[in-house]
Amino acid sequence: MRPLNPHPDRLLPADPGVRDLARAIYRSVAGAPIYSPHGHVDAAIIAENRPFGNPAELLITPDHYVTRLIHAHGIGLDQLGVKNPDADPREIWRLFCAHWDVFAGTVVRYWFESELNEVFGITVTPGAQTADQIYDQLSEQLSRADFRPRELFDRFNISVLATTDDPADDLAPHRALAADSSFGGAVIPTFRADRYMSPNLPGWKDALSALATTSGIDTESYAGLIDALRARRAYFKECGATATDTGILDSIAEPLPSAELERIHRAGLAGTATEDDATAYRRNMLYEFAAMSAEDGLVMQLHSGVRRNHHDASFAKYGPDTGHDLPGACDYTNGLRKLLNDFGTNPTFRIVLFTTDEATISQQIAPLAGFYPSVYVGAPWWFIDTPAAITRFRAAATDSAGFNKTSGFIDDTRAYCSIPARHDMSRRVDAAFLANLVATHQLGEDEAHEIAADLVARIPISTFRLDSYAK
Amino acid sequence: MRPLNPHPDRLLPADPGVRDLARAIYRSVAGAPIYSPHGHVDAAIIAENRPFGNPAELLITPDHYVTRLIHAHGIGLDQLGVKNPDADPREIWRLFCAHWDVFAGTVVRYWFESELNEVFGITVTPGAQTADQIYDQLSEQLSRADFRPRELFDRFNISVLATTDDPADDLAPHRALAADSSFGGAVIPTFRADRYMSPNLPGWKDALSALATTSGIDTESYAGLIDALRARRAYFKECGATATDTGILDSIAEPLPSAELERIHRAGLAGTATEDDATAYRRNMLYEFAAMSAEDGLVMQLHSGVRRNHHDASFAKYGPDTGHDLPGACDYTNGLRKLLNDFGTNPTFRIVLFTTDEATISQQIAPLAGFYPSVYVGAPWWFIDTPAAITRFRAAATDSAGFNKTSGFIDDTRAYCSIPARHDMSRRVDAAFLANLVATHQLGEDEAHEIAADLVARIPISTFRLDSYAK
Amino acid sequence: MRPLNPHPDRLLPADPGVRDLARAIYRSVAGAPIYSPHGHVDAAIIAENRPFGNPAELLITPDHYVTRLIHAHGIGLDQLGVKNPDADPREIWRLFCAHWDVFAGTVVRYWFESELNEVFGITVTPGAQTADQIYDQLSEQLSRADFRPRELFDRFNISVLATTDDPADDLAPHRALAADSSFGGAVIPTFRADRYMSPNLPGWKDALSALATTSGIDTESYAGLIDALRARRAYFKECGATATDTGILDSIAEPLPSAELERIHRAGLAGTATEDDATAYRRNMLYEFAAMSAEDGLVMQLHSGVRRNHHDASFAKYGPDTGHDLPGACDYTNGLRKLLNDFGTNPTFRIVLFTTDEATISQQIAPLAGFYPSVYVGAPWWFIDTPAAITRFRAAATDSAGFNKTSGFIDDTRAYCSIPARHDMSRRVDAAFLANLVATHQLGEDEAHEIAADLVARIPISTFRLDSYAK
Repeated sequence: MRPLNPHPDRLLPADPGVRDLARAIYRSVAGAPIYSPHGHVDAAIIAENRPFGNPAELLITPDHYVTRLIHAHGIGLDQLGVKNPDADPREIWRLFCAHWDVFAGTVVRYWFESELNEVFGITVTPGAQTADQIYDQLSEQLSRADFRPRELFDRFNISVLATTDDPADDLAPHRALAADSSFGGAVIPTFRADRYMSPNLPGWKDALSALATTSGIDTESYAGLIDALRARRAYFKECGATATDTGILDSIAEPLPSAELERIHRAGLAGTATEDDATAYRRNMLYEFAAMSAEDGLVMQLHSGVRRNHHDASFAKYGPDTGHDLPGACDYTNGLRKLLNDFGTNPTFRIVLFTTDEATISQQIAPLAGFYPSVYVGAPWWFIDTPAAITRFRAAATDSAGFNKTSGFIDDTRAYCSIPARHDMSRRVDAAFLANLVATHQLGEDEAHEIAADLVARIPISTFRLDSYAK
Repeated sequence: MRPLNPHPDRLLPADPGVRDLARAIYRSVAGAPIYSPHGHVDAAIIAENRPFGNPAELLITPDHYVTRLIHAHGIGLDQLGVKNPDADPREIWRLFCAHWDVFAGTVVRYWFESELNEVFGITVTPGAQTADQIYDQLSEQLSRADFRPRELFDRFNISVLATTDDPADDLAPHRALAADSSFGGAVIPTFRADRYMSPNLPGWKDALSALATTSGIDTESYAGLIDALRARRAYFKECGATATDTGILDSIAEPLPSAELERIHRAGLAGTATEDDATAYRRNMLYEFAAMSAEDGLVMQLHSGVRRNHHDASFAKYGPDTGHDLPGACDYTNGLRKLLNDFGTNPTFRIVLFTTDEATISQQIAPLAGFYPSVYVGAPWWFIDTPAAITRFRAAATDSAGFNKTSGFIDDTRAYCSIPARHDMSRRVDAAFLANLVATHQLGEDEAHEIAADLVARIPISTFRLDSYAK
Repeated sequence: MRPLNPHPDRLLPADPGVRDLARAIYRSVAGAPIYSPHGHVDAAIIAENRPFGNPAELLITPDHYVTRLIHAHGIGLDQLGVKNPDADPREIWRLFCAHWDVFAGTVVRYWFESELNEVFGITVTPGAQTADQIYDQLSEQLSRADFRPRELFDRFNISVLATTDDPADDLAPHRALAADSSFGGAVIPTFRADRYMSPNLPGWKDALSALATTSGIDTESYAGLIDALRARRAYFKECGATATDTGILDSIAEPLPSAELERIHRAGLAGTATEDDATAYRRNMLYEFAAMSAEDGLVMQLHSGVRRNHHDASFAKYGPDTGHDLPGACDYTNGLRKLLNDFGTNPTFRIVLFTTDEATISQQIAPLAGFYPSVYVGAPWWFIDTPAAITRFRAAATDSAGFNKTSGFIDDTRAYCSIPARHDMSRRVDAAFLANLVATHQLGEDEAHEIAADLVARIPISTFRLDSYAK
């Protein structure tokens, strides 16, 4: 049985002199409140403050970072509980523990070690022998009042947690939390209208109907849809939103004439929109979203380039977000040229660009952010939110854009209990990066401390216009 | 005269604390047997156990890693003996030694230093002044019985050496070695059917004829060719093969209807197959190879993206593999989508993906291997089999796929005497990588030792299904 | 007030043992003369030796590396003096100092620190409080005789400074300097004929007229233009040129039949050349330039892949080179295949390839330079001329091409007073790289010292054929 005791200096540089510098920087921000401006936690969990379920349901089954690598070793997703309510949670947990070794060196392992130890007080390493013992300890704790979502929210020291929400959502949990004087944090919605962008996809018509119902605006025309979306953005702002999000494969924004838009919109309703129609419609919509952001000041987030649902059989059986989305290239420089020409220097407009394609950071995003006042470099996303990749990101982004045009850390997670571990990782890696600059005399030690503090507070607050929630 | 004495700690991290960790890890695997599951040594050399020729013939002329950089400094390939049997081997050796400085910092230099010192006992650095002395010492040794291929095989501590062979090959050397009870190692064939994939290339018809003769199966039809290939795969398996290899420019697999295949096959025989015909045929063949692997369990290796024979005049004069092949991009994610949809979760099927395009590792191969049970990340190939690139590879691959879905080191060499130096380099670089994880508390020291041991034995044995040869 | 005192060990590795090695290497080359084979200083400045203007005019307004990042924080380029002669230079300087923090971690900050301290003796860090004090000190110094261009040329210890010049330029300043026995340095022209490559661009006809006037050769035909360019190359050589430069978006060289060339040329004169015409004409011209270099031995430099003038409004208001050029991909391997097939092994021909796309270095340029005698790896350019990127460059280039096929450092600057800081940065980074090779026993310490010396003298002299100017 190996003990589980994450080292206080983990991720800090090995060189003793640099480690001393890094440790001091890290410690100065280790306890700072968490700003989480983008993620996928369900606000209802916090509003209702119901206890979490069993360990598998909380930590394994819904987390495709975890299930994918176990699947890669021959275990069916159903055995891990995906779309399989009959799976025994203890068996799922045993499977996970039996595969602990396949996560060696990965960031998933890193997060788990911090989370199991620091959130749940586990002191033995997962493995075939320890699976039941850990399961029992987790189960016991999850049943306790101090492990309910709101109590953890306080313990995690979260200032702002942004969720991701459909325009037709009534945001009742967000409103309930805002109205609840006993809740000190902020849980704010993010407007994500992906479903309305593709008139050839199943679900588009249903989305339009739901939106019409919620907004009271007819969405049978393109103009009506835009009016409805605009109205819902206003509603989201009232409910605390400061940002939108868009996740698409390509990143091309290109306005269309309104007659053409109405034609495609009608074709979509008639079920006759072609692939080309849908592409043109989507590219126009991306442009339209920028125009709206330039009006209402909601910060636009753009996540593009991911190729979704690579394995058809898994998609058919298990649905989306089950581990076979794959990184892809994106071309922000050309794709957003028109958009940035029209809105790039508009002080109301702001856009944060994310990528899973590392080359894009130094080649496109940082240089764009190093000229356009509206453009910010999004933190490394998804496949590249690891200690090694974040270090490379910091080097790549800083060269052209410095620190101030980066977004601050984004956890982008649905794994609520991993939020502290993820932000802590980021603070360690940034401390290490800054310490190396100090050790090589590229930055003064006092300034490094200031930047570390900025990266966890001033910078995310400023980038995402969170001033009214700042602590 | 500079002494040549490769440092026992070479390639280990400079930081004294990390070096201590790395040295312990390295030493624990330094003497482990070599598994070489992919390479280009000629099995006949070992079967016949004839003494090697002169130093130039052994170490310089056939090695395009070496000749290319000397050529880049203005020396003709003919002066280095390429397609020039009249060249004086001592003069070739002198040219090489006179260009020793141009290899500074390259992995070719690194391998040579290890090989000259550890295999041949050379203790002075090559240079104009030492060329003759080294040449004489090498020549003397190469004439000795203990420097014959089989004696070196034992001394190199090779467990398994896979060669690369044409389907029409009779594999007589492999069978002779297997039947020879005095030979303790395993030299196994690898089925490489590239020649049969392109009906518009010179040599395709000849290949078909040879295959028909060897297999006794008529290859005048596409169906016949497939039958013959399948039969030969079975024969290769009987002769010890556990894997196939395919080297193509693009990596697109796309099945065609059989009528269309037969049409193109006939056009190929008639000499009228177009470029488009050939492309479609090749892409179908790649898919077909996967289907066969899913049947017979031979591990499929895919080496794609290299642009061959860039300089026409050199190709015309010296033939292929003369130093002007160049790295290129490849798109496994899209190109293999159909193939992986059909076979990616089939437990019999297995595919190891190689690339010379570093971005592909973190963008495509590791994420694919991090979901599909059948996909493994091939070791860094050719232009990126250097200490610095292997370190980057390990970071890139581990993030998404951990250690267990990587292939283990592949030397991919025709330079027999460099095999120990190459594997030793890999063990040092991996030890350094693991030591850094330990030093930054991302991995326990005991686990790092286990992983180092796995990387040189369990992992290549398991990836390439070498269990029956394991020592 | 923070003191400004750049550390003598800045950019050297943090590990004490490696730092000792690096310091020794760095010190051995720190004072070596500067060879600057490519840049954008105006020769007239040196020839006329007029005092520089105010600090803003010298250090801020013309330097788009500086203005772009301040613009990215919402300051108009006009406020920084760009196309705005009415802007108060002291106010510009104050704006710059107030934004000092946004440059933290960037190479612009690094250069400024070295330059302000070592050239101008500034000992306080720029900031809102110190702006006026620094401005006054700079102004006082810029008015002194020992801060005039020629006095600085001597103080900077520049051996060769290459400028960039239009073929129609009379090179009077270069000739004046060459004829002036009181001037000990060499200021040599570089032939850059970009303006003549695109018959659809405004300015092409004017360029042709100017060239006809200067050369006395009729440029109304394509053949005439080529004759005129050839004549001017000869003139440039007489005036000391050893190289040409070409900056284009793509890097495709493809000869056209002369009838087609004459047709496009006429269309250009008639204002009817299409985009496709222009592309074909430009690609032919690139090939033609290589053919000329193969004749006259001028070293061809190729800078490709940059997407110019991304923001139309800024281009319209401020002109080119105002911070919104962006890195792009380039494909030298395919694009230059014909060119390298025809001239790549010609001993008179030489081409230095530059890129802003890091992947290109290991994927294309270094492998090409590792085979073709004519190809050299250009130093990292523009967005990647930073300490971190140069370190990555050195690793990437060395793997395939060693040190001897790289160009030596290129400052590529119009910021005259930053030249020493840039070369010093490069010497430090290369010393650190070499020290790491020594510390990991990949290179002997004596050889590392030799290579460091080569990188600052023998290598640029040899690559750019500067032998007659060598000191």
